[in-house]
Amino acid sequence: MRSEARFGAWAARAEAALERALPADTAPPQRLHAAMRHATLGGGKRLRPLLVYAAGAALDADEAALDFPAAAVELIHAYSLVHDDLPAMDDDALRRGKPTVHVAYDEATAILAGDALQTLAFSVVADTPVADAVRVELLRTLAAGAAGMCSGQALDLAATGRTQPLDELQRMHALKTGALIRAAVRLGALVGGADAALLARLDRFAADLGLAFQIRDDLLDIEGSAEQLGKTAGKDAAQAKSTYPALLGMDESRRRLHRLGDAMRDTLAPLGERAAALAALGELAIHRDR
Amino acid sequence: MRSEARFGAWAARAEAALERALPADTAPPQRLHAAMRHATLGGGKRLRPLLVYAAGAALDADEAALDFPAAAVELIHAYSLVHDDLPAMDDDALRRGKPTVHVAYDEATAILAGDALQTLAFSVVADTPVADAVRVELLRTLAAGAAGMCSGQALDLAATGRTQPLDELQRMHALKTGALIRAAVRLGALVGGADAALLARLDRFAADLGLAFQIRDDLLDIEGSAEQLGKTAGKDAAQAKSTYPALLGMDESRRRLHRLGDAMRDTLAPLGERAAALAALGELAIHRDR
Repeated sequence: MRSEARFGAWAARAEAALERALPADTAPPQRLHAAMRHATLGGGKRLRPLLVYAAGAALDADEAALDFPAAAVELIHAYSLVHDDLPAMDDDALRRGKPTVHVAYDEATAILAGDALQTLAFSVVADTPVADAVRVELLRTLAAGAAGMCSGQALDLAATGRTQPLDELQRMHALKTGALIRAAVRLGALVGGADAALLARLDRFAADLGLAFQIRDDLLDIEGSAEQLGKTAGKDAAQAKSTYPALLGMDESRRRLHRLGDAMRDTLAPLGERAAALAALGELAIHRDR
Repeated sequence: MRSEARFGAWAARAEAALERALPADTAPPQRLHAAMRHATLGGGKRLRPLLVYAAGAALDADEAALDFPAAAVELIHAYSLVHDDLPAMDDDALRRGKPTVHVAYDEATAILAGDALQTLAFSVVADTPVADAVRVELLRTLAAGAAGMCSGQALDLAATGRTQPLDELQRMHALKTGALIRAAVRLGALVGGADAALLARLDRFAADLGLAFQIRDDLLDIEGSAEQLGKTAGKDAAQAKSTYPALLGMDESRRRLHRLGDAMRDTLAPLGERAAALAALGELAIHRDR
């Protein structure tokens, strides 16, 4: 199957797994459950679940087992978006083309929904049908990704309104978006039973992909329209955030993106065809226009 | 050893375990780490960790193993307090005799610190030195407690400003404070290798203790001063929240408390001396004056 078709099938699997994991909005507390569903279902690129499935596919892992970490990592991502969008944080009104949770519901509900989504993520990963020792490792991986993401967001807050040097910007993004992307790849690889050498190779790929994803994000914030992005464009400049284009210029940022593409291809080359889906996600991170 | 002396020793163990688990505030992001420490260290009754140790003691569990769930359950409790105190939630400025996290730091940092404390709780419980199958069960128990607590807080928000009927109030508290208290007892019992019958008996005790704790809390909010409580007194009436004294009167609330005391003693009686510490915590929940 071509990678694009697999991505569609995997995104549908992830959506179904999220639907199974989320509480019904007919069960009390309805407002909390509705907010959790609003934050999670029917939107987003599902990059992190796709990385779980693609890393698992490189090791012939059972897709039904991958559903659990795929849903869990997306629940962590969704919780972080709900909290990042809050007025006290990035104060965003639009996300994935829909009103953000605190706009559609209220701030208290948004705080609680984010909290409950994080808890649910750990519940879901604990149910992965693998050996208990692997489950524990999945849990540790998910926690490491979530913790890194949170530290990255704290570094980002601390940097708003001043220009960050490039190495600091890189460190911030390696945590804020990189940590959970690396966790996603590692989760899939762990379900597939990867050994330490393969885990390390895939982690190198994931770290490059995370950085590429962020540089492309910065470029899109300048190039894109709100309609394309499904979120408010031009926010970075408006909030005086440091970005790759601001520090390096557009051309050098694009050159770095392409070099990261080369690095990802080199890292995956020894794995051959079985890493085709991962490789395609690497290309997507670089070339995406939303 | 008398129970009071054991409680002091256990609270010190929990404090040391939390100190080991929390990131240093000299490591970046310093502000996030300082806020996490502010929220967690050096305060509180440590009821939930004490319940972990006391339940474990009833089964002769290794105290060094109990340190992990004891710290984890307190991290969940601490995260919930940070978020509950936020302006969009209960808007409290004082907690454990100190300024709340969003007052001492800022709202964004308080949101993030709560998020990071929750993640840390799951990391810590994953490191409990027990068999992997038990670790997974500890994780599920902690997640169930955290999820219940969050649903309870959502029900509480939904009820603010109107009078709740007694059964609805009871359901709300069974989740908001009861779920994590039950999780604490179950965590200790699981580390001690309790069988299903004993887990069920201890859970009955924990459910009664949770309810007693809440009724006493409502009474203290009316009787107590801010100095005694280390938090703002009289908030319930000011926010028009339903409470046991408001629905049942002071005398009937006190009678219910005492009946819960009888029920807890009956439940623990078959366990004899080994449940002495649990029994003492039951008495404490009923008779505490802060």
